[in-house]
Amino acid sequence: MEKFFKEINGETWLVEDERDNMKLHYRLKDVIFSKKSPYQQINIVDSYDFGRCLVLDGVIQTTELDGYIYNEMISHIPAVTHNEPEDVLVIGGGDCGVVNELIKYANLKNIDMIEIDRAVVEACVEYIPSISGEAPKDERVNFIFEDGIKFVKNKNKSYDIAIVDSSDPVGPAEILFSEEFYISLKKSLKDDGIMVCQSQSPIFHKEVLKKTRNILKKHFPIVRTYKAVVPSYPGGMWSFTLASLKYDPLTANIEKLNRNTKYINSEIFKSCFNLPNFMKQELE
Amino acid sequence: MEKFFKEINGETWLVEDERDNMKLHYRLKDVIFSKKSPYQQINIVDSYDFGRCLVLDGVIQTTELDGYIYNEMISHIPAVTHNEPEDVLVIGGGDCGVVNELIKYANLKNIDMIEIDRAVVEACVEYIPSISGEAPKDERVNFIFEDGIKFVKNKNKSYDIAIVDSSDPVGPAEILFSEEFYISLKKSLKDDGIMVCQSQSPIFHKEVLKKTRNILKKHFPIVRTYKAVVPSYPGGMWSFTLASLKYDPLTANIEKLNRNTKYINSEIFKSCFNLPNFMKQELE
Repeated sequence: MEKFFKEINGETWLVEDERDNMKLHYRLKDVIFSKKSPYQQINIVDSYDFGRCLVLDGVIQTTELDGYIYNEMISHIPAVTHNEPEDVLVIGGGDCGVVNELIKYANLKNIDMIEIDRAVVEACVEYIPSISGEAPKDERVNFIFEDGIKFVKNKNKSYDIAIVDSSDPVGPAEILFSEEFYISLKKSLKDDGIMVCQSQSPIFHKEVLKKTRNILKKHFPIVRTYKAVVPSYPGGMWSFTLASLKYDPLTANIEKLNRNTKYINSEIFKSCFNLPNFMKQELE
Repeated sequence: MEKFFKEINGETWLVEDERDNMKLHYRLKDVIFSKKSPYQQINIVDSYDFGRCLVLDGVIQTTELDGYIYNEMISHIPAVTHNEPEDVLVIGGGDCGVVNELIKYANLKNIDMIEIDRAVVEACVEYIPSISGEAPKDERVNFIFEDGIKFVKNKNKSYDIAIVDSSDPVGPAEILFSEEFYISLKKSLKDDGIMVCQSQSPIFHKEVLKKTRNILKKHFPIVRTYKAVVPSYPGGMWSFTLASLKYDPLTANIEKLNRNTKYINSEIFKSCFNLPNFMKQELE
């Protein structure tokens, strides 16, 4: 049994050990899947409070209970903000939840999903179909198992939308928060392209959010930070930052928003850009 | 040492044990205060991630890091919604954070704070002055150490605003979520009065939120549920329910909102009533 699973009184618990000052213990019904890939330890667990969860190196990445909030917010906002999107790039997102939101938009013609770890996708498609949904069967979706950074370097004005669905900026995902990466991501966008990334917790990772915004402001004329609640993430509130070469989400045609959603609706679309005072002050 | 404090490798951790399926461990710098009152075990701790916290029977009630979010949301919304509030009742709220928000409104003339446990107020005033602030010195504030339920029963058309700042609906606070209590609270309000209560997590305690709303709808013409992010509460998102005899927060004069706040501002005031789809569906 991996070191982050603990037996206590005959029951299995997942102990998230990534933070110095707070440890979360989740009671599990079962560890459904376990595999060591060349990149990481992959587990699918069935938990009491959050349903099935993808766990990478002992850290929960997405859950059946609330994964849709993150997935909807990182995908519907750019899909609605762009006037006529057709080609979309998703970096990471091995659980396929983001792609499963994107395919709700019939106008999208081509979705390239670049995930370094094929085993993550295979595990999620098999064991958490409630998150991956129809994505694996949709002909517009191309699964490309490569290093996202290398892939993007060779792309030039190819995409209308690029979504960076990264894990935390430690270890392999750290470079996905670097200026070098954002510059090549911009190069991969068409002249009216939009990119979105998750920019971490505005409570516990203020510095990541500020740094991300400041880098993007150097390279894009329109930069908007928005927020959502993600119950299973530390701090509850999560931030996303959208950087755009032409279209502004504040004046988007929200009529286009897909209605088959569990979190986002037109009021949430508009109000997610309203930030609390402490965030405004941090970002000024 | 109380049973919810654990020594691990020479360091002290608080283990929140209230939930069956999730245990939170917080690393502490120090346990600053410890007292067994007739009602509960009271501790003030200094934590690494959340600053100083009030802990009752091993469960964190409020923290320096994010207590202001809850306190601002439960107090500024009714204070702005009522046209000319003067007399306010606060039930519970021993940390004094809610009262410390209310005194920002110069038009309030009388604030009765009914807290059953005097020792909680004394501990918070002494050890977490960043939360209790100026409240203990404000002459408009009357600290009344009594059972809130009994106190309210003897009041008739006395208050413009009543705020129920209760802990979770288990043990002594359970009655604060009962129909009987809401009926006597309504009786304590003037003809254009407003009451607000915290109605728990819309993720983990859906039933409490629904039940609270349904009871209030039987007795008040205007009932509005609103949301905020509270990072240190399980699930991150928290709900409040406002019940009003005359004034509707959706048409309130937001110009009156006090600007000396860390979370709420006029956009947050307006958008906190925009609920995500999963909440709308639950509450329909």
